[in-house]
This record gives sequence, C-alpha cells and structure tokens, in this order.
Amino acid sequence: HGEHCRCEHVVYIDEEVAKLLQLKAQLGGEDGKHVFVLKTAKETLTGKYGEDSKLIYDLKDQGGELLSLRYDLTVPFARYLAMNKITNIKRYHIAKVYRRDNPAMTRGRYREFYQCDFDIAGQYDPMIPDAECLKIVYEILSELDLGDFRIKVNDRRILDGMFAMCGVPDEKFRTICSTVDKLDKASWEDVKNEMVKEKGLSEGVADQIGEYVSMQGGMDLAERLLQDPKLSQSKQACAGLADMKQLFSYLQLFQVTDKVLFDLSLARGLDYYTGVIYEAVLSQMIQAPVVAEQNGALPGDEASVSVGSVAGGGRYDGLVGMFDPKGKKVPCVGVSIGIERIFSIMEQKAELLAEKVRTTETQVLVASAQKNLLEERLKLTTELWNAGIKAEVLYKKNPKLLTQLQHCEETGIPLVAILGEQELKDGVVKLRKVASREEVDVPREELVEELKRRTSKLP
Amino acid sequence: HGEHCRCEHVVYIDEEVAKLLQLKAQLGGEDGKHVFVLKTAKETLTGKYGEDSKLIYDLKDQGGELLSLRYDLTVPFARYLAMNKITNIKRYHIAKVYRRDNPAMTRGRYREFYQCDFDIAGQYDPMIPDAECLKIVYEILSELDLGDFRIKVNDRRILDGMFAMCGVPDEKFRTICSTVDKLDKASWEDVKNEMVKEKGLSEGVADQIGEYVSMQGGMDLAERLLQDPKLSQSKQACAGLADMKQLFSYLQLFQVTDKVLFDLSLARGLDYYTGVIYEAVLSQMIQAPVVAEQNGALPGDEASVSVGSVAGGGRYDGLVGMFDPKGKKVPCVGVSIGIERIFSIMEQKAELLAEKVRTTETQVLVASAQKNLLEERLKLTTELWNAGIKAEVLYKKNPKLLTQLQHCEETGIPLVAILGEQELKDGVVKLRKVASREEVDVPREELVEELKRRTSKLP
Repeated sequence: HGEHCRCEHVVYIDEEVAKLLQLKAQLGGEDGKHVFVLKTAKETLTGKYGEDSKLIYDLKDQGGELLSLRYDLTVPFARYLAMNKITNIKRYHIAKVYRRDNPAMTRGRYREFYQCDFDIAGQYDPMIPDAECLKIVYEILSELDLGDFRIKVNDRRILDGMFAMCGVPDEKFRTICSTVDKLDKASWEDVKNEMVKEKGLSEGVADQIGEYVSMQGGMDLAERLLQDPKLSQSKQACAGLADMKQLFSYLQLFQVTDKVLFDLSLARGLDYYTGVIYEAVLSQMIQAPVVAEQNGALPGDEASVSVGSVAGGGRYDGLVGMFDPKGKKVPCVGVSIGIERIFSIMEQKAELLAEKVRTTETQVLVASAQKNLLEERLKLTTELWNAGIKAEVLYKKNPKLLTQLQHCEETGIPLVAILGEQELKDGVVKLRKVASREEVDVPREELVEELKRRTSKLP
Repeated sequence: HGEHCRCEHVVYIDEEVAKLLQLKAQLGGEDGKHVFVLKTAKETLTGKYGEDSKLIYDLKDQGGELLSLRYDLTVPFARYLAMNKITNIKRYHIAKVYRRDNPAMTRGRYREFYQCDFDIAGQYDPMIPDAECLKIVYEILSELDLGDFRIKVNDRRILDGMFAMCGVPDEKFRTICSTVDKLDKASWEDVKNEMVKEKGLSEGVADQIGEYVSMQGGMDLAERLLQDPKLSQSKQACAGLADMKQLFSYLQLFQVTDKVLFDLSLARGLDYYTGVIYEAVLSQMIQAPVVAEQNGALPGDEASVSVGSVAGGGRYDGLVGMFDPKGKKVPCVGVSIGIERIFSIMEQKAELLAEKVRTTETQVLVASAQKNLLEERLKLTTELWNAGIKAEVLYKKNPKLLTQLQHCEETGIPLVAILGEQELKDGVVKLRKVASREEVDVPREELVEELKRRTSKLP
C-alpha cells in the first residue's frame, strides 16, 4: 500500500495514504506494524520554510482541524520517504503547490501552480548527485531554448561559516540568510539597511558580509576563499568550499561549467537546506532581432520578459529524519522547476516570433466534398485510428469542404484525406497537403503507408 | 490570461484564475470586461451531484468561507468553458479529485485519487461525438489489456420516459434513478425494497420498472422498445431510443459493438447527465492459466480481481449553461477514467503473472571494475547523455563491479558499459548484456551507434 510504481516514475497518493495510515495507527492497525502516529496536516509544514511560512495556505476540515495546502513538493517527498522507510530513490514529480502570495500573472506567478521536482535520495559519495541535478537543470533549460541562463550555486555551510566569521550571532543565521536572499531583487543598500535596522546587526558586521556577498566566480573562487584569512578559520566554510571545488570538477566532466556561477549572495529562504544550494535565472531580455526587424522594429530592440528564477534547489540532509520516529536521516538533493514561469516565457517568445502553437497532434482530417458521406468518413477514420494514425473527422453529417479545410488551417492539421463518390468508386482517397494545396490520389490500401511516410517527415 | 495551451492538451489553473477573475470583477477590473461575479467555491458544486453530494469534501479558508475540494473534473471543466466563453473544444485532463467516501485500498478506491477525463464540447450532429467517446474507452481498455470488458450504455431520456410511463411522479425521477443505479451491486429485491419502502413507490410501479431494467441488448433492443406499447407513448423515451439506434450505427462503423451493451438498468447517480450515459466494467475474474499452472495451481483456477466500473460518462448539455450569466448552453459529452482502479488491476495482474515492473527507462549503466575511474565514468556518461542515450552511473567513487551488476538486475537495466585501464588504453568500452552476460569490446567512437542499435530492439 501507499506506493505505486507508474512506469518510469513514482507517483504517490501521499496525503490520503498518510491520513489512512495515521488512522490505522490510532486504531492499532490490522497488522500492528504502524505504531507511530504521524500528523500529516499543518504540523508537517511548520518550521520547514523559515520566513516564507507566512505563505502557507491554511484551511480547516469538517472536524475543524487546521489543514494546509502543500507549499512545495520537497516536504511531502521527505515525509513519504520517512513513512515508507525508503533510503534510496531517484524520481521526478509534477504536481500543484499553493502559496498565499501576491500573484503576478504576466510573470507566471500564481497562487496555485505546478512544480516539477527531481530529487536524488540516498547515502552517496559527496557532490556526485548534486552535480547530476545541476546537469539536469542545464539540459532542461538548454533544450527548452529559453535564451541564455545562469545557474548560481552556493553552500549553506559557506554562508553559515561566513556569518560566523563576520560576527553574526548563531541565532540570527537564518534570518540574515533570508535578508541576503533578497539581493537578487534589492540593492545592497536596502539589504544592509534591513540587516542593521530591522535585524540588529552592527554596521561593521554588515559591511563584512557585504564584501563576501559581492563575490562571484568558479572553481578559482572556491580555491581563493579556502585561503581567505577569515573564512579559512571556519571548519564549516572550509567543508563547503572543499565540496564546491569537488562539485566544479564534476561539473567540468558534465560539460556545464559555462553556465554555472559560484555566487556568495545566493542564500535561498527555505530553512531545510543543509549544503549546496542553487538557482537558475534566465537572462532578463529575450532578443528577437530578425522577426522584430520584419515587424518594423529597429535592430537591437529588445522585448523585456522578466520572470526571475525558473528553478532552484539544494541539499537537505536533515528533512527526512524530522519525519522518522527514530530520526534516521536520508541525505537528499533536488531541484524544483517552476512550470508556469517557463510556460509564460515560452508563450511570450512564441508571441514575439508570431509563432502559432499547435494545440493538436492530429496528422490528417478525413473530409468529404459531397453530401451523405458521413458513414464513409467514419469508416475511413476507423481504419486510420486502428492503424495508429492520428486522424480526426468533423462531427457534422454534411460539413462544407471549405469548413473542413478551414478547420485544418486553424488547428494546423497538415493533411486532408478527401472522399467522394468518384474516389469510392475508384478505390482511392484524395490526399491533400493543406499548406501547398497539392492533391494526389492514393489507392485506399496504400493510404496508411503513405500517411506514415509523410507524417514521419513532418516536424 | 487563464488559458494555457500546453502542446496537445489544454491545462488550466482553474481555481486560482477563477478567484483572481472574481476579485478583479469585484474591483471593477482593469479593463472593465469582467462584470460578472462567479463564486467558484462550495456554491459551484452543490446541486450537481444529486445524492452523491454527501461525498463532497468541505473545508474552510482563512476567512472562514466554506470551500470544497473538487469532486470530479466535469463540473470544473463546464465552469471553465462558461467563464472563458469557449463553445468548442476537445481535450483530456488528468488530475486529482476528492471524495469523502469509505476507502477500499485493495480495490483501488481512495479518498484522493486521479481521474482522466476526455470531453467533447460543441454543437454537433447527434451521437457522433458520443460514439467517439465510446470508441476511445474501447481503445484504452483494449490496449491496456485488462481482460474482457463491457461498456453499458443507456440514455437519461429513456430512463425518464420509462419512469413516467411506469407512473413514477416527476419529482421522484432523480431519486429513483439513484436507486436503479445500485442494481450493479444490489439484487432487484433490495432495489425494489428501497423504491417501495424508502422512496414511496407502489409495488405495481416498482414491478413495471423491474421489467424494463432487466433488459439488455444492442440496436435490436432499441428498435424493439420503439415499438413497446408503453415506452412509445413517451416522446422523451422515443427521442432517446432513436438516438440509441443512431449511436449503434456509428459504433458499428467504429467496430466496437462487440463490447457495447444497451442496458436499461444503467442509471448513474449524477444529476447533470441529460442524454446518453455509459459505464465500462471489467469482467470480474482475470484468468492466468499458463502462469498459474507453472506456479502449481490447477488449470482453471481464477484469481478474483473485483474493481467495479473503471470508466463512465455521458452527455451533459445543461451544465455549462448553469455557469453562464446568460444561461448560454454548450452541449458536452465526456468520459472519466478511474486511474487508480486500472492501476490496481494492472498491479494485481503483474503480481499474478510474477512480472517485474520496470520503474526506470535506463538503457545502460556506465560501470567500472577498477578503482579511481569515477572521472572516466562521468565523462562517458556525459557523452552518452549528450547523445540522447538513457544512461546512469552509480554515485560512488569506487563501487564494486558486483554492486553495479546487481543494481542492473534489480532495476532491469539491460546493458552495462564497462571501463577499465585496458579499455581506456585500447579506446574501447566493454559492453555487457546483463541477461546473457555476453561481453564485447566496442570502439568508443562507435558506442553510441551500437547502443542505439541495441536499444531500439529492446522491448
């Protein structure tokens, strides 16, 4: 129970199974195996998201018990591993999450939205799964062809070590982390202001932090910081920096270092990260010079498509243990990809390029130029469906040929198979290319082969 | 806004967009276009599900407003069409729905579960889209190879006409419909009992209904009932029966009549259906004689896999109009497929056949028999990934060869590419077939081609 292997990925009915297991545990359980009571509602979520906790969507159930909509897929994944005693898994999961945030629809920011998570859980040698996560983000963003991007990486241990060496009190590490995280949107002045006026750091401490968080580089920066008089005093920072070097050596083998940037200002707000953290950002501007020129714009004109980060993640070695009755840890590293943000860019890009996005995969419309041929159209459609051809037919008894051809043009169906009395008599089908209007008679028994031949060439 | 075309199907962020549009409408709207206020929470769901309404999952939001989790995908789809003024669409949608029902996990019945809906909306000639929905259910159940199945069809108008002619008062049609719907699980005696004792029908009326609901057949039954002295008095029943004949004529063209059964006992509980209704049921027993014999069972032994219906649907011409401020109707017909129920059968079948379900698509593991070759393994893995090969590597610096081979056997990875000092020197990779243990040296520059050649033959 509770685990469903669905082809290549694990999908789980987590909320409900958890509730049932909980009920079963409370009732003693039919097999007596589930002796722990694990609350899966509000209690599961609190204390995992730091200052972002205010974004959790609360609800009450019919019994008045406080519930919440899931904030991300990471915490439910960790709970799933703990409850099912899984110590070793690699999986992706696409599902909705909820944030009580201010929506910004043009930027692809909603209160209910999809995330795609990929995680690797298990006890492995350092930085190999971490590097694979970055390779995957790199591949996805490259293949989606969203323009130039950067993947910023940092490590919580480097941040913590740096905070300690700069003189930030221990109990302020997390809240200062949240403040540093705002550097991608706010200026250093504003961030410093928050550190000093709201969070009570001295100006001297803030300025020391300011120096570090302006640093960016690659493996060279990690090597340099290992020699830094202050940072090298921190065991934590050194461990993080040594792993950062190791990470970059794997990233070189994975051929992705051209887009990966070690950036000390990357902090990420969530409390559960324990090691490497990363965030992928697209370049703010998408250039479309050729099409823009065709549309009368000046060369060099740019359309602004600002969406902020499109993916982020990191290592969270302590989260699974928080759900295990004995605190047994399962090290994890993963990435969350913001689907709506990526779609929003792809849509704006398609608009900019005046591209028409096909919403159907139909390869051929079965049509007729004459009346009373619905039965013949349905018969041919059945033949094509049964042969695995993606075919469609208008749901009208006697549609006009023009209507049928217009439907193809509107929806991008590339081919039309036209039936008429003459074609039926001759045992042929008139195959028409919508784009070029070329027509050719194809013997009925060769139609499937001809369609397969033609559609395999189509984009 | 509010519409996202995602490749071949429409996905929508319905709840949230609806809330935002509502908010916008209340605020006047930036463009002044949205002047109606449409409640998308609890109010949307009530009055659509008849006696099943008790299964709706209620919640309260932070403002104390009553909310519900969606009961199905049909009502949200209808609301989506109305809000976006879509009069014409064909789409599928896979997502979670919620029922406050008694779960039965071995039968694949959960409180939170996935449905896959396919719907055709638009004003078309009668029964053509309805027939396509049945063709699709037929194709899905055939291709999933779940054993024998039947698709029962009926029509709400035939039921209503039959109730009227048997003397059921108008206001009792829906509740008697719910009672008839229990005939798939309960005996006629129990159902009659409920009609007479709980719902106040006379025994004579109940017996007349009893005669009709025992009838099953195909087009012939529709023709026969068109001549039935009682039913032929009802305009509604005649319209339903004429359409049933028409439906069967299209089903013949679609070559699916061998599994479709016109069954007057099929009622379906939901209130929103207005015409054709249908339900697909798998044969209760799955036979696996060959494997069962191998496992020592007697020939003829059967394993019981009872799951009830796996798909259902029908025509709902009035639902979209209920969400349109002017009541504008959009005729719809659709089908819902119960994913968990189908998975539960597939899993039990796989267990029965002692089949191992592969949970990964990985084609090759990059391995090494010697120490200190992690970098070489990662380099080769990168080459394979970049060439589109599904490759994996263990996240260990120096894994034992046995561990690597065991990993392949456990997860069903069919091939291993083994690197060693000698292979690196010779510019080859040792390619091993896991099943047969055959090994062959392949020149490194030919490895991608060789893997593509081999994996295209694999199942």
